[in-house]
Amino acid sequence: MSVLIVGSIALDDVKTPIEERVNLLGGSASYAAVAAGYFSPVNLVGIVGDDFPAEHWNFLKDRGIDLAGVERAVGKTLRWSGEYMWDMNTRETRSIALNVFEGFAPDLPAGYPESDFALLANIAPELQLRVLRQMKKPKFVIADTMDLWINIAKPALLELLQNIDMLILNDSEARELTKETSLIKAGRKIQSLGPRIVAVKKGEHGCLLFGENEFFSCPAYPLEDIHDPTGAGDTFAGGLTGYLASRANGAVTFEMLKTAVVVGSVLASYNVEAFSLERMRTVEQKDILARFYEFQEIARFDAGTL
Amino acid sequence: MSVLIVGSIALDDVKTPIEERVNLLGGSASYAAVAAGYFSPVNLVGIVGDDFPAEHWNFLKDRGIDLAGVERAVGKTLRWSGEYMWDMNTRETRSIALNVFEGFAPDLPAGYPESDFALLANIAPELQLRVLRQMKKPKFVIADTMDLWINIAKPALLELLQNIDMLILNDSEARELTKETSLIKAGRKIQSLGPRIVAVKKGEHGCLLFGENEFFSCPAYPLEDIHDPTGAGDTFAGGLTGYLASRANGAVTFEMLKTAVVVGSVLASYNVEAFSLERMRTVEQKDILARFYEFQEIARFDAGTL
Repeated sequence: MSVLIVGSIALDDVKTPIEERVNLLGGSASYAAVAAGYFSPVNLVGIVGDDFPAEHWNFLKDRGIDLAGVERAVGKTLRWSGEYMWDMNTRETRSIALNVFEGFAPDLPAGYPESDFALLANIAPELQLRVLRQMKKPKFVIADTMDLWINIAKPALLELLQNIDMLILNDSEARELTKETSLIKAGRKIQSLGPRIVAVKKGEHGCLLFGENEFFSCPAYPLEDIHDPTGAGDTFAGGLTGYLASRANGAVTFEMLKTAVVVGSVLASYNVEAFSLERMRTVEQKDILARFYEFQEIARFDAGTL
Repeated sequence: MSVLIVGSIALDDVKTPIEERVNLLGGSASYAAVAAGYFSPVNLVGIVGDDFPAEHWNFLKDRGIDLAGVERAVGKTLRWSGEYMWDMNTRETRSIALNVFEGFAPDLPAGYPESDFALLANIAPELQLRVLRQMKKPKFVIADTMDLWINIAKPALLELLQNIDMLILNDSEARELTKETSLIKAGRKIQSLGPRIVAVKKGEHGCLLFGENEFFSCPAYPLEDIHDPTGAGDTFAGGLTGYLASRANGAVTFEMLKTAVVVGSVLASYNVEAFSLERMRTVEQKDILARFYEFQEIARFDAGTL
């Protein structure tokens, strides 16, 4: 089944303690679309400027991503510049220039409203809602969000929560949104705000998945060397959605969601091994499977002689 | 097989945002011994004062714990007083009075040196070493430690690490000991200091287990209400050691260790449901099994149609 993905498409400058790189393909939708594309046809919605390199455009196109929904506007592409501290966990945004993204008001091209699945990747909840309203009864809608929107666009975010099936956010955002310290309480509270499924990402500690009466704790892959964490969350969301769309002919079950969370984690663990989307150039289905089984091994234990 | 456990036995005053309780049975060895006692005979080594309540003594005795190694000295029992903040995660020690513990220099009574397993629960590494030196070739030695000893007794701790099979510590301690931010790097580095097995406890995020060429990520139980976190780590270590001792007739395998880590986590998750060791009064083997299977369900996922 097809997946509509809306989000940002950006040019990133990224500095890590080891290396600095400029003009990288970035943005929540770029990462999510490439990850989802491993499993399902992707209809991408976004905006780029007339400075957007043909190299990046062709990279997305060559992955089979439908770019009919990507507007090419006069002006500059959204630019983000960030720096990771020595621990690779904390990062500082050095600068952000919205450029053409400032006027982004997506209208879906023909065919897009009929997409079966939607991933409203991390952008302002008003924009996520605008896209969602143009869709015709999608089977399953997933939204990602971030602390910025909790702080400056909470009413729109709360409205969004009433209209989606699943929310993805990280641990500090879950705490901020609910004012609960316990992630278990926070997850349950977010469900009461609308989405029947909530995924709380915990970085190096994995991910918690809350279902209606179910709960799943997904481990993190034990990576020793991370080269660029940018886009890990977007890749996770994209992989998860793409996998679900490829498998859910009927209802989306919790068993499917668990597998999807691991698939998303596998893709994210690969993505951080190189800058931007570079690692995705070489990751194949067989690599995804191989690491999926490693995840199973990491999490598996039996009752033995208990 | 029998387990020797050495550590502190204390009287605790504990304040949580909800309740305050005094003269509770506490101390690393008390928690560890009761947890280990679910699976194996326990030889306890510690010291109490002449004010130690008969009620606490009898509680330990009634659990079948051998108390021949517990010295009853003239003076007051070690006292600890602590307060948990509203999030139940951070705690402040309000006061600590070593009392008779100050002169603690354990000599093992007859039979104790032949114990098959040893858990050197959280006390000064010099004391852990003193006990270990009196033992006759135990099969498997586990030590627990804390940030205090990393800061004030690092040489003794490093000597201890050369003489044990497994170290248990929490995430911030692992980082402090190794100066590594990545817990994966920290765990591997601690192995290079001696112990072939390392367990890094992550509180609400579960536990990481490092083997020689193996790795296991144990989830945390999704508890919504914690009444008293005191002793959770000691209960974890005790349950883990007791289970191992009951099952390991031959070599301690990584499969056994994984199961043991889950068993320890199960016991710790019960223990925090009430003050002191009160929850342990009613937890039975069948409860341990029931929650063990819940842990399996929380961590289980399959490849589905991947």
